[in-house]
Amino acid sequence: MEEKNDKKIPRRAMLKAAALSATTALMGGVKVPDPVKTGVIPDPTKVQGAVPGKLGTRSPFEQPIKKASEISGRTPLQDLYGIITPSDLHFERSHAGVPLIDPQKYELLIHGMVERPTVFTLKDLKRFPALSRIAFIECSGNFRTGKETMTPQEICGLTSQSEWTGVMLSTLFREVGASPKATWFLAEGSDAAVMTRSIPMEKGWKDAMIAYAQNGEAIRPEQGYPARLFLPGWEGNMNIKWIRRIEVSDQPFMTREETSKYTETIKDHKIRQFSFDMDARSIITYPSYPQEVEKGWIEIRGIAWSGRGKIDRVEISTDGGKHWNNAVLQEPVLDKAHTFFRYLWRWDGNPAEIMSRAVDDTGYRQPFMKQLIDARGSDMGGYHLNPVTAWLIERDGKVLFKPEKRK
Amino acid sequence: MEEKNDKKIPRRAMLKAAALSATTALMGGVKVPDPVKTGVIPDPTKVQGAVPGKLGTRSPFEQPIKKASEISGRTPLQDLYGIITPSDLHFERSHAGVPLIDPQKYELLIHGMVERPTVFTLKDLKRFPALSRIAFIECSGNFRTGKETMTPQEICGLTSQSEWTGVMLSTLFREVGASPKATWFLAEGSDAAVMTRSIPMEKGWKDAMIAYAQNGEAIRPEQGYPARLFLPGWEGNMNIKWIRRIEVSDQPFMTREETSKYTETIKDHKIRQFSFDMDARSIITYPSYPQEVEKGWIEIRGIAWSGRGKIDRVEISTDGGKHWNNAVLQEPVLDKAHTFFRYLWRWDGNPAEIMSRAVDDTGYRQPFMKQLIDARGSDMGGYHLNPVTAWLIERDGKVLFKPEKRK
Repeated sequence: MEEKNDKKIPRRAMLKAAALSATTALMGGVKVPDPVKTGVIPDPTKVQGAVPGKLGTRSPFEQPIKKASEISGRTPLQDLYGIITPSDLHFERSHAGVPLIDPQKYELLIHGMVERPTVFTLKDLKRFPALSRIAFIECSGNFRTGKETMTPQEICGLTSQSEWTGVMLSTLFREVGASPKATWFLAEGSDAAVMTRSIPMEKGWKDAMIAYAQNGEAIRPEQGYPARLFLPGWEGNMNIKWIRRIEVSDQPFMTREETSKYTETIKDHKIRQFSFDMDARSIITYPSYPQEVEKGWIEIRGIAWSGRGKIDRVEISTDGGKHWNNAVLQEPVLDKAHTFFRYLWRWDGNPAEIMSRAVDDTGYRQPFMKQLIDARGSDMGGYHLNPVTAWLIERDGKVLFKPEKRK
Repeated sequence: MEEKNDKKIPRRAMLKAAALSATTALMGGVKVPDPVKTGVIPDPTKVQGAVPGKLGTRSPFEQPIKKASEISGRTPLQDLYGIITPSDLHFERSHAGVPLIDPQKYELLIHGMVERPTVFTLKDLKRFPALSRIAFIECSGNFRTGKETMTPQEICGLTSQSEWTGVMLSTLFREVGASPKATWFLAEGSDAAVMTRSIPMEKGWKDAMIAYAQNGEAIRPEQGYPARLFLPGWEGNMNIKWIRRIEVSDQPFMTREETSKYTETIKDHKIRQFSFDMDARSIITYPSYPQEVEKGWIEIRGIAWSGRGKIDRVEISTDGGKHWNNAVLQEPVLDKAHTFFRYLWRWDGNPAEIMSRAVDDTGYRQPFMKQLIDARGSDMGGYHLNPVTAWLIERDGKVLFKPEKRK
């Protein structure tokens, strides 16, 4: 295409236009011809490149997006590598949109069964000892099924991972003199849904954090700017964003979000009200729909995680579950964190079914959908579903989701 | 301010405008009044928040930038937390700007003393086994001094850290049958500077990587899209970006960048030509200029790193170097990686001088400027300078850089 253009347009003019197009595209401009579409890209060794901007940008050839609905955005797991989720691709789920909060006016009140009810400003929170940890947050409703043409993003894109930094909640509990008799606390958000959940004090003392930073910088608005509750390994909904109030008590508060929602139907028409931990899970992100593969060596890759601890191993089957072998786990394997795994496989070109199964360090093994149905009954709700996900590789190299039947 | 506005404008109109302003600001629009400036921010619990976009955004109250010149951008270390550098804040330095490269047309040639000279496409590179590691890259010219009003970004913002994913160069060397007699290889970039450096084969076999991903997604243009050489711990300039050619040889190539530049004047008018490893270093990022502090408990925070291994400890002095105590290191402490440290200190309100000193697991201790001058002579160049950085805390809480004198 370059040669063809050379004959029609003076080369100097073309280079200039292309360089401008390239530069402007890289600098975030929008009105220049898209170099991806025009294909007019000069030899990069022959034209001066773009100068630095205030911020870096993505290549115009890379346009990952969160599939956004009115209430949520999902991480494009099939496009990602390793364990860090870029902050602008972190999943989001809110009950009344993303509020705009002035950090100068932000306040967190801790009261109830405490000796010294206290209002903390953001500056106050940052003055306490800081801690960082790389860990995932996953929505408890993180499972979809239904058709073969579903991506990992569509199936389970409501999990993402960041380096979170903040102050340990235990530090704040000591500061306000939380009562040793207290057993639960309420966490309340400052969004228009005033999202509220009850959380056992034990978790608060153990590893809960008030996070104000994400992947090195201020936490993003969609993830709770300027501060959120972070409960490593526990269902996303409890990790209250835009947190403004914590009330210490000796009983759960029975909020809307733990009665009408976020409960699970189990057997014999019973309902499990509190289910905090996200169980071990994994998904193969390569190969997955809509990718295609070629005969020969394929490195099967994906992520595994557990809200109960570290991933102990990830088992891979390339024959529909008859035989299993361990994948290699990328070090360092972190507690309550997405863990990158890989497994070399030689595909002979025949139709195949591949799947992964996570085992965490408590010994828990990721179940098949059938096991979930056996345990909970076929009218189980949509929360805490972590079935083994299988991909079908067709003779022509196309990869399709093997949709799990819910009944 | 809200109340004042209430009297002038019907409340409904104000809320609507504010919500729109908030939403548009969050969605990346530019023509609405800046909520930071207008201060017109409604109670977030009373207005519907913003709906998800294709990508997340920063809060309009957070506007970190790389200080950009014509050739470089620097990471705002004083604004960051933890160890991950957001990709759009990763430092950049180029010799002819950032090229635009079509990933479909990208090719890497490996030739020279190899059995099978080979051209790899990006797809080829991604088909090999992948590896991820969190590590820093630092420019060898990462030191500035001169005045008290300098930020960590200005002093040493040419170091950043990402999770890098790619294929090990050793894998490609085996693929092409690199000669066991080869001792050096040339790495060549496809920017307009056609940046080239000679690198010992030993490093290539040990831990060099052709990286195509950064912090979970495709590598950014400023960092070498679609692929770069990554040499953990070695000076940034050698980590050739936009890499297009590797030539295996039995001698160094004596390129422009290792003769006229990137060499260091040492004693007796001698010049050190090859100095690969970035030595251990640290900087306190809080408190630092232009921050201010108050009397009482202060958590001194910063990052430490070494191109030779892991950080063993970071020593802190709060009395101008008379006494030293160990900081706490944030786990996991990774090899050749920025390590977040912190140290609780009670400031009595008197003028103080604070500083940090990194020690790596080879036993090397970060030197004072005087030690560097003693070792290299006062006409030493501007590369590989890693002196202890001190901050002066004034009685009023202002923090100033204590500029190192070069002579």
